[in-house]
Amino acid sequence: MPQVDLNCDLGESFGRYTLGLDDQVLPYITSANVACGFHAGDPEVMQHTVDLAVADHVQIGAHPGLPDLEGFGRRPMQITPEAARDDVKYQIGALQAFVPSHRLHHVKPHGALYNMAVKDYDLAYAICKGIKEVDPQLLLVGLANSQLIRAAKEVGLPYEQEVFADRAYEADGSLVSRQKPGAVIVDEDLAVSRTINMIKTHQVTSIDGQVIDIQPDTICVHGDGVKALAFVKKIHQALTNDGIKVTAQQVHA
Amino acid sequence: MPQVDLNCDLGESFGRYTLGLDDQVLPYITSANVACGFHAGDPEVMQHTVDLAVADHVQIGAHPGLPDLEGFGRRPMQITPEAARDDVKYQIGALQAFVPSHRLHHVKPHGALYNMAVKDYDLAYAICKGIKEVDPQLLLVGLANSQLIRAAKEVGLPYEQEVFADRAYEADGSLVSRQKPGAVIVDEDLAVSRTINMIKTHQVTSIDGQVIDIQPDTICVHGDGVKALAFVKKIHQALTNDGIKVTAQQVHA
Amino acid sequence: MPQVDLNCDLGESFGRYTLGLDDQVLPYITSANVACGFHAGDPEVMQHTVDLAVADHVQIGAHPGLPDLEGFGRRPMQITPEAARDDVKYQIGALQAFVPSHRLHHVKPHGALYNMAVKDYDLAYAICKGIKEVDPQLLLVGLANSQLIRAAKEVGLPYEQEVFADRAYEADGSLVSRQKPGAVIVDEDLAVSRTINMIKTHQVTSIDGQVIDIQPDTICVHGDGVKALAFVKKIHQALTNDGIKVTAQQVHA
Amino acid sequence: MPQVDLNCDLGESFGRYTLGLDDQVLPYITSANVACGFHAGDPEVMQHTVDLAVADHVQIGAHPGLPDLEGFGRRPMQITPEAARDDVKYQIGALQAFVPSHRLHHVKPHGALYNMAVKDYDLAYAICKGIKEVDPQLLLVGLANSQLIRAAKEVGLPYEQEVFADRAYEADGSLVSRQKPGAVIVDEDLAVSRTINMIKTHQVTSIDGQVIDIQPDTICVHGDGVKALAFVKKIHQALTNDGIKVTAQQVHA
Repeated sequence: MPQVDLNCDLGESFGRYTLGLDDQVLPYITSANVACGFHAGDPEVMQHTVDLAVADHVQIGAHPGLPDLEGFGRRPMQITPEAARDDVKYQIGALQAFVPSHRLHHVKPHGALYNMAVKDYDLAYAICKGIKEVDPQLLLVGLANSQLIRAAKEVGLPYEQEVFADRAYEADGSLVSRQKPGAVIVDEDLAVSRTINMIKTHQVTSIDGQVIDIQPDTICVHGDGVKALAFVKKIHQALTNDGIKVTAQQVHA
Repeated sequence: MPQVDLNCDLGESFGRYTLGLDDQVLPYITSANVACGFHAGDPEVMQHTVDLAVADHVQIGAHPGLPDLEGFGRRPMQITPEAARDDVKYQIGALQAFVPSHRLHHVKPHGALYNMAVKDYDLAYAICKGIKEVDPQLLLVGLANSQLIRAAKEVGLPYEQEVFADRAYEADGSLVSRQKPGAVIVDEDLAVSRTINMIKTHQVTSIDGQVIDIQPDTICVHGDGVKALAFVKKIHQALTNDGIKVTAQQVHA
Repeated sequence: MPQVDLNCDLGESFGRYTLGLDDQVLPYITSANVACGFHAGDPEVMQHTVDLAVADHVQIGAHPGLPDLEGFGRRPMQITPEAARDDVKYQIGALQAFVPSHRLHHVKPHGALYNMAVKDYDLAYAICKGIKEVDPQLLLVGLANSQLIRAAKEVGLPYEQEVFADRAYEADGSLVSRQKPGAVIVDEDLAVSRTINMIKTHQVTSIDGQVIDIQPDTICVHGDGVKALAFVKKIHQALTNDGIKVTAQQVHA
Repeated sequence: MPQVDLNCDLGESFGRYTLGLDDQVLPYITSANVACGFHAGDPEVMQHTVDLAVADHVQIGAHPGLPDLEGFGRRPMQITPEAARDDVKYQIGALQAFVPSHRLHHVKPHGALYNMAVKDYDLAYAICKGIKEVDPQLLLVGLANSQLIRAAKEVGLPYEQEVFADRAYEADGSLVSRQKPGAVIVDEDLAVSRTINMIKTHQVTSIDGQVIDIQPDTICVHGDGVKALAFVKKIHQALTNDGIKVTAQQVHA
């Protein structure tokens, strides 16, 4: 039976600022990427988010970001691989403290850190090295076919390849830039059927018509608005209806 | 054979800013309180400090502080016990990530957080609870006879009672306020002999002449200047000469 | 004709985090207290907020807070009077940069800084001194009958005495602590009529039945929710209906 | 009589962290670039630095940086031109608050913000626009022949072209990258004579032997170490000996 993980960014509130419909999206996802205080989240938000995820039996992962709360970790910063490694270790450790087992399920770099590491092998390698130093059983969640996955293989870190339901792909497996027409698939039904097809065939058609290989271990979904939430429910239902098991990979067996 | 631990704050540099003579003081201390990024320290500094301490076989503890880099964690802030608990958990977890064993030896609250918890049982209790939730074998390092020690006992957390070589005590075991005359013992030889006496007798004479009980498990020393460093060497030598073993308590047996 | 100023905290968003119904409350208020980046607000939010206020002919004031974004400036911190003075100067200057005339109308300390200065004359004096050093025509907005007003008089700074429509007063003119029963006046009609009475008589009855003098130059209203917004409209209408002119004091004549 | 300005970064301490030999370098420089709290400096440090500069009759300018204290503003960040404009306005305003006249002499972007703007016209334009919005008489200090100078001309902002005594130039007027051999002129006597020649001839020979035009209005010197300080004294003496007046441009006539 084919299966797939649904991962979603959670715990993005900070202090008096609230963001995301965390409690509403949790029943439909299988993995939570919890912000760790650099681009979003604070210690009390982290504890609360972990408690919610534990109650809903959702796997908990760290979502380390760049040290830029004002920019929500979305502004690329030229940090050294060593700084990236240590920033990631710091954030993973901080989140572990709030989890009853002190073990996490996965680590997914956030925002600009993710986008930079997808293309920059040295950065990706440093991040994977840092993750492994904290816990070698942690799953790296990274863009399918990217430098993050290449680095995880090289470092010897388990990983999940991530796909995006609503994004078009280039022939080299990278995401089509949002600057280009056709980058985002606005037709939700098409996005869903395309994703199901990826899961069943391990292939996707690129924006220029080439069939490329892709391994969709986990799908990125969003819980930061009413529309996003509706889509999570829709894709969860469609996957289940089509005989695809929605579940997180088991680790720490 | 009587023994005592010598603990010192380390890893207080931040970014381009350097503070402390860490590498010079390490050979003379047995426990390092490593700053965790809230009042001082950053991920790269933490990794570097941990590496130095490991190389010198010095026990590594977390030194969690208030979220106030500008004030170096020395300005009292009215945070809730829950916020204090979560801030402490966060910082312990972050430091654990950099230690090869991922286990720490102790936790000593820093600056204003320490000073507030010494007198505020609810705050002290929340801190001890947070430490225990992360690792129940962690030693709480707190002022001898203070609310921190009372809270550790109540929570069931192992602890080390801390004494200060150069500070006078009130009859209730608290430190004489620096505002009062006689609060600081400036004569280094007197400070040393007084400390040795505490270790041998488990008693100290308060500023108003009363003999009080005190359990000097660990002595706080400083490495942030040439004079402080010289005193560490002096007290280390004097303790050894007097047949007192300078060593950290063993944990995680 | 009696008159009163309606002041409201604005510009409390930060980065990706949105807070407050700024554009909806602006037509009903006469003075905006704009967050300056310490407890809320960032440079882009500040520019946007100033532009909105200018367009609605609302007087612009600085709302300097403690350096504690996570606690939204609501957690008391023991900062020195000198640090408070310089933090206030910094924030006033920063906001001035975004205002076309580079002159502000008033300064109202935020949150815990306000609450501390209301009772602590040394702190209040340092804040007023700082304001005067930046611009001696700036109005200090502070709790009626408080140490802030006393300090403004002493420093020679113009001021507006602030009253709260929904709060009960102690016989000494201070606000009844929210911990005590009766501190908040939940009946909106009562709150409005009580405020109008204050404006007309310059007196208010304290919680223990004493008539005290009060000078209600400005009323604090809120725009951070639907209910708060409705109340602003209600009190604005009631004041106007009762022949009270809702307007800001003119400065920089 | 030829003249030149000597500018130096000052006020880079933060909280408990001290950086720079500010009081020792001040007698030898004519313009101070004061950090404004984003990459270094805090309100109390800013006030202290301004007081020192005023006492030594040194012109005071803002040294706005990227919001990255940990990276000292040296890590390039992809901020939008609008964010850069508002970050610069904020920092200029903040510093103005501490200066008795509330007028500054100049603005020199710091670190990565400077280096990015030197090559990125849109960013440079936004920065110059922001400076002009705060005070159209402020001098922009930017690398000679760079996009910063081009933007200042376009915006209609007065400017000073900056040269570096110890750096080699490319034929297009840009600095030779520190990655390339020959980028830094280590022979101090050569650095000095080369600078004097630039001031007298308004020309410099590029690393590949071409004579290029350059307008050396101000020379960047450093006060962050004993060696740097010695060089400032040396170049100041040599300039004076050679009949070059060391003085800041007058503004706000």
